[in-house]
Amino acid sequence: MTLVSEISEFELIARLENILKLSSNIPDAQIKFAIGDDAAVITPNSKNQVITSDALVENVHFIYNQISMYNLGWKSLASNYSDVASMGCDPLAVSITLGIKKNQQVEDLEKIYEGFADITNKFGGTIIGGDIVKSNDFFISISVIGQNNHTSTLMRNDAKPGDLVVVSGELGSSAAGLKLISDFDRSLYENEADKSSKFIPFLTSHFKPEPQIALGRAILDFNITTCTDISDGLIRDLSNICDSSNVSSIVNIDKIPTDVNLKSIFPNDWIELCLSGGEDYELLFTGTKNKINKIQKHTSSKLTIIGQITKPSDPKISLIDNANNTIKFSQKGWDHFKES
Amino acid sequence: MTLVSEISEFELIARLENILKLSSNIPDAQIKFAIGDDAAVITPNSKNQVITSDALVENVHFIYNQISMYNLGWKSLASNYSDVASMGCDPLAVSITLGIKKNQQVEDLEKIYEGFADITNKFGGTIIGGDIVKSNDFFISISVIGQNNHTSTLMRNDAKPGDLVVVSGELGSSAAGLKLISDFDRSLYENEADKSSKFIPFLTSHFKPEPQIALGRAILDFNITTCTDISDGLIRDLSNICDSSNVSSIVNIDKIPTDVNLKSIFPNDWIELCLSGGEDYELLFTGTKNKINKIQKHTSSKLTIIGQITKPSDPKISLIDNANNTIKFSQKGWDHFKES
Repeated sequence: MTLVSEISEFELIARLENILKLSSNIPDAQIKFAIGDDAAVITPNSKNQVITSDALVENVHFIYNQISMYNLGWKSLASNYSDVASMGCDPLAVSITLGIKKNQQVEDLEKIYEGFADITNKFGGTIIGGDIVKSNDFFISISVIGQNNHTSTLMRNDAKPGDLVVVSGELGSSAAGLKLISDFDRSLYENEADKSSKFIPFLTSHFKPEPQIALGRAILDFNITTCTDISDGLIRDLSNICDSSNVSSIVNIDKIPTDVNLKSIFPNDWIELCLSGGEDYELLFTGTKNKINKIQKHTSSKLTIIGQITKPSDPKISLIDNANNTIKFSQKGWDHFKES
Repeated sequence: MTLVSEISEFELIARLENILKLSSNIPDAQIKFAIGDDAAVITPNSKNQVITSDALVENVHFIYNQISMYNLGWKSLASNYSDVASMGCDPLAVSITLGIKKNQQVEDLEKIYEGFADITNKFGGTIIGGDIVKSNDFFISISVIGQNNHTSTLMRNDAKPGDLVVVSGELGSSAAGLKLISDFDRSLYENEADKSSKFIPFLTSHFKPEPQIALGRAILDFNITTCTDISDGLIRDLSNICDSSNVSSIVNIDKIPTDVNLKSIFPNDWIELCLSGGEDYELLFTGTKNKINKIQKHTSSKLTIIGQITKPSDPKISLIDNANNTIKFSQKGWDHFKES
């Protein structure tokens, strides 16, 4: 065990860089120079670049002992990669800034870098540098450059009345995973082997989400123009599309795809988990039935039509169920600052 | 006065975005979409891109009440722009992540954004997004993409024995400014109007440094290949060049350019301020007399030859004075983590 205060900044960088080199990641030919000069150098040959940034702060976005350091590395990059996917791009270059505590263990940081290395190995992208600074609270601040050679990227602002609303995968699982670890009801959680296995998809979804890179590219390939990822919850992310496109929408909550056990394990919470849980990192897009069918034939991702885009109206998002009852739901979604 | 906890995340982003729009900054034609989607979109048309990241943390890199918020914004971007300059590039796109405290004043954040807006107006580059998160300590984490259309960028690794060692501007001023505000000797600092005016260049250098963007481009235009910025102090930054190029160097400390008052105000400290003070954000480069002369004719920046690159030897950097005496100096430079 080595504390970061026991070694120099250069030793620390060398140890972390070593993890990246040991990984089987082959740098992109466009990455000319990564760590070791005043700046990294890349020679882009793409038509479009996208740039996204996300930060995770200890005790705000994660609790140090509630997530493995490997998963923390994976997940912090996955959330950025999800934004790249939602633009219809592939990851190219990753800049990572760490704010580290002097009593932090170097081995913990190495585990985080193993998570970074593995997700870049699986989904592409090269870690080209960043910054390491001292901080009282540990934080990870990441910027990712993505790219494609299409004439455009996927945006939020082109949804049209009549378009169908589609989501990939299953919703609410990540928030369910968070609820499991937060409530920490051990009797539910650990004592019955049979039951526990039901929880694994939720925990996996929360701790090791997969960015939908291939699906994002497929959506763009089949001429869909409007897409976002479901990072803040369905209501909030669909609202973003409606706001940007100046449209409204109807969603049938009985159509929302969920893990087979979500409703039985969380009978009172599943709707909220699905609608505003957040961090599912699935894609939410709109388009014609014809285009959606073509994408579904092309991809192994599960696609589900959950609603329709309508002309601008109030409320912006109307929720119904299979019996056509209107469902009431607070449409606030996440808001990180306002004290309530 | 408004606390960030009193408004929503969206209101805060709108207020900060408003500052950027009010600025006279004309977005680059390559910036296709900035704030407001999952990621910013740019359509680069440059041969080389450089990416640099820097973070500033409260109580580590700055004390909240010791620097104006405007200067904090300016300076945090200036340090990134200096890295772009040292690569021979122009700033293109800026991503800014803020970790903010709930009791922080929105007006303070707006002042920081005025600093950001002004430095982009002066030196180019567009703020294309970022992230805003809650944090116990305030931090600013910035990534900048720079670019040029040369066949290459300036690097650290091509210094050759016989090359002259050149610095721009004056060294030690920023560290002198920090010393003035840290020691806070009011008798020296405020009581004599005459004396106080002497301190202004040091305080300006510390609080509102100017990145050497134009000079960086000129250095590259005249076929110099090796350059870095002086952010960690002359010894450390020259060591980086020597390490990367596998050479050594001799520096004459009497040649080091300083503010006219540095030596008289800091008779015991000026050498240390010049050699390891840091944050001068001047450029340090190596090349032939002929090339240096050409650059000097082209630029209004003051260039000073302070030494020469030599074959690899021990010590890596030899310090001499005008009388050819060898000067002893600890070559450690900055090290942010190791406790000593």
